[in-house]
Amino acid sequence: MNREDLLFSIRTLSLSLDAAGFVSIAATTHPSDLVDALDTLSVDKTLPLLMMLEPQVRAELFAHFAEIRQDQLLAAMPREAVVQLFEHMPSDDRADLYNRLGEDAKQKLLPALTKVERDDILKMASYPEGTVGSATTSDYVWVSPEMTVAQALAHIRATALHSETVNILFVLDHTLRLRGTVALRDLVLANENRTITSIMHEQPVSAKAHWPRLQAAELIRRYDLLALPVTNGGDRMIGIVTVDDAMDIEKEQDASQLARFGGTVSGNGNDLDVRSTPLKQMFRVRVFWLAILTCFGIVTSTFVAAQEELLSQVIVLAAFIAPIVDMGGNTGSQSATLVIRSMALGELKLSWRDVWFVIQRELPVAAGLGITIAVLEAILAYFSKGVGMDVLLVVGSSMLVCTALGGIIGALLPFAARRIGADPATLSAPMITSIMDLIGVFIYFGFAYAFLGDLLIAAG
Amino acid sequence: MNREDLLFSIRTLSLSLDAAGFVSIAATTHPSDLVDALDTLSVDKTLPLLMMLEPQVRAELFAHFAEIRQDQLLAAMPREAVVQLFEHMPSDDRADLYNRLGEDAKQKLLPALTKVERDDILKMASYPEGTVGSATTSDYVWVSPEMTVAQALAHIRATALHSETVNILFVLDHTLRLRGTVALRDLVLANENRTITSIMHEQPVSAKAHWPRLQAAELIRRYDLLALPVTNGGDRMIGIVTVDDAMDIEKEQDASQLARFGGTVSGNGNDLDVRSTPLKQMFRVRVFWLAILTCFGIVTSTFVAAQEELLSQVIVLAAFIAPIVDMGGNTGSQSATLVIRSMALGELKLSWRDVWFVIQRELPVAAGLGITIAVLEAILAYFSKGVGMDVLLVVGSSMLVCTALGGIIGALLPFAARRIGADPATLSAPMITSIMDLIGVFIYFGFAYAFLGDLLIAAG
Repeated sequence: MNREDLLFSIRTLSLSLDAAGFVSIAATTHPSDLVDALDTLSVDKTLPLLMMLEPQVRAELFAHFAEIRQDQLLAAMPREAVVQLFEHMPSDDRADLYNRLGEDAKQKLLPALTKVERDDILKMASYPEGTVGSATTSDYVWVSPEMTVAQALAHIRATALHSETVNILFVLDHTLRLRGTVALRDLVLANENRTITSIMHEQPVSAKAHWPRLQAAELIRRYDLLALPVTNGGDRMIGIVTVDDAMDIEKEQDASQLARFGGTVSGNGNDLDVRSTPLKQMFRVRVFWLAILTCFGIVTSTFVAAQEELLSQVIVLAAFIAPIVDMGGNTGSQSATLVIRSMALGELKLSWRDVWFVIQRELPVAAGLGITIAVLEAILAYFSKGVGMDVLLVVGSSMLVCTALGGIIGALLPFAARRIGADPATLSAPMITSIMDLIGVFIYFGFAYAFLGDLLIAAG
Repeated sequence: MNREDLLFSIRTLSLSLDAAGFVSIAATTHPSDLVDALDTLSVDKTLPLLMMLEPQVRAELFAHFAEIRQDQLLAAMPREAVVQLFEHMPSDDRADLYNRLGEDAKQKLLPALTKVERDDILKMASYPEGTVGSATTSDYVWVSPEMTVAQALAHIRATALHSETVNILFVLDHTLRLRGTVALRDLVLANENRTITSIMHEQPVSAKAHWPRLQAAELIRRYDLLALPVTNGGDRMIGIVTVDDAMDIEKEQDASQLARFGGTVSGNGNDLDVRSTPLKQMFRVRVFWLAILTCFGIVTSTFVAAQEELLSQVIVLAAFIAPIVDMGGNTGSQSATLVIRSMALGELKLSWRDVWFVIQRELPVAAGLGITIAVLEAILAYFSKGVGMDVLLVVGSSMLVCTALGGIIGALLPFAARRIGADPATLSAPMITSIMDLIGVFIYFGFAYAFLGDLLIAAG
């Protein structure tokens, strides 16, 4: 069913409250699409539809709603249904949901669950947000090294009904330590009587629960894994991160790169989201960066104001301040994004070798850009304002130096940011602008005094 | 083996040329890690090591080298080995490699291959770069709808040795049209005698070969697929895109988002890469954007120069031009990145409803930012330069209007960009700066004449 038809059906069903109809649609529609359609209804209209579903189906669908939406639906749900959710939701999604409950709600919920569920939730929910543990699901299948292929397959048939994935199976010894992995594919292709030990992949890639979750996603991408085993401090396996979760993690991280560059990330590391972030927080985070830029700008403008004498002699100098200092920031922005991008792709690291390499590459380009833009600006300045040769010299020379210097400094800033442990994308943009503004006015008026200083002497 | 040990071993082996040693390491090391280590050697030293491997192993390793490196190695390789590469490499990687050969080399290569290989290469290589087809591999396993589970498993065992993936199997009818998909997991869990038709997932998500490859990656991420079937114009299946390739596609795309915002993407859509892009191209692309900004800047500076009379009366006005017009660009940059990010995550679409929604959210924030920054600037201006009330009024009012307006315009620019079919990230940054510079000086001098105009009358 295409998008419009689905939307129409859902709207009709929400009015007619036709349970059989909705259950049927839910059975044949992918959760992502169904959630998109349901998102166009209010919570009051969505809930009755959800309650028409079997608990298992409802829980799987629920996990696909955005977190904000989940919280709204949960608040309106009868207690029975809430407990059922926690019984049937995938292990990692329900741990996240649990962490968003208030203390009161948590205390009410836990006694209603079985011990197995309670232990699982408490364990999975104990990992701080942003860690590998918080992205881990305990829904995986494990086998023993001594099993034969036939026994392993039988074990899978018996237990795998609700696992997140059985494409990769994890070989654990009796102490629950990870000994290897074996692909379902290998089990299917191998002779029945071989032992797991003889076909398993030893020394598998794994991640620790306390690592940043981005590291898990990178490992999955680098090694083309379907699922990454996660161990705790004692090397015991606690769960897995699946490749689909890895894709989502990377998507969020990369969406955040531009946000960090544009100064729209709050202190706790969360991107501002234009749709969902509370307006107060939006204001607070943005005003922080703008205020910083304003304060930096005061230094620059105070310096310019102090050049009153020279300016009053050559008013037209005022017209070129902005374009010249801007160009340093523009060029620096370009080289910074080049370096940030390569760092994000893992191509550049924080090493003197890479710094030197970048400088070698940027120097000729920045010089070339400086000369070209300086000539262009001088030509345009002459034809638009008819300024004299001496002012052209000032404008051209400053443009050249600012552009070239901006390029070099912009390329070095991401390295400097990482050196002090800050995020390159966050630090670079405001820093480039501010630094090049300040350097720019010094250079500009420096050349102005050099070429036009005689005017002051003459006047004074 | 950890990174340093591996590096040491590889270096030693490249000197001792110990074939057995290298083959053994290659067998126990993941290709990604081995390639990282080999990248530290020159091509002359890498090639002898590669030639120690069996053709199949060599081809799988080769596919992990960066494209530049692949081309260098290929050029140094004996012809026999080149043919072997094309015989054994994964179908999508070798199609890419084929497309990078010169016409001469292509003509020499094709006769040396079997017909099956030749047809496959020509077909897979025919899809333009950037399309789904160019990311497609023909290494997949298909089954017929009438097969039983037992027959399907037997078929897999017979044919699956070198398939990219058998976790998902594709159900094709006798005309090679895609009828459904079935997971290996489902085959393992189902009763042997059931037919494929009874357990397959009908109406599977698929992609057309001519679609942009990013669309394939998005489908894979949205529907949590392991492999996405790809069909041609006639609805016949030509291959699959696997989830690991989807992760790589998205990684490149997202790395490019920042590049586009920073003005470092060439006309053909390729990101500039600080390490590998030829310096001439680097210069050409960057000077293009900087020149555009310079030309826009001339309009602004010409206008400022024309305000000579007012400026000569109130020199200190010159000091505030840059901070005020900059703030419009800064605020606009923030709101633009917010909108671009949400667009990239699929949360905002090109629709009046979303435009209106964004304006509603941005208006109060932009107004609040405007007031706050205007007051801050006025205070700083007073204490740093001791300017009079009238100048403070000019500075404060312009700052307020520029900041607020910048925020609104910045939020709308990505929508405008998409409306004219341009990429929002590419268009927004230079546009914001230029537009807000121009609007900024108009507003600034507008207020200046309003509050300080009497000075001109008095003087004139």
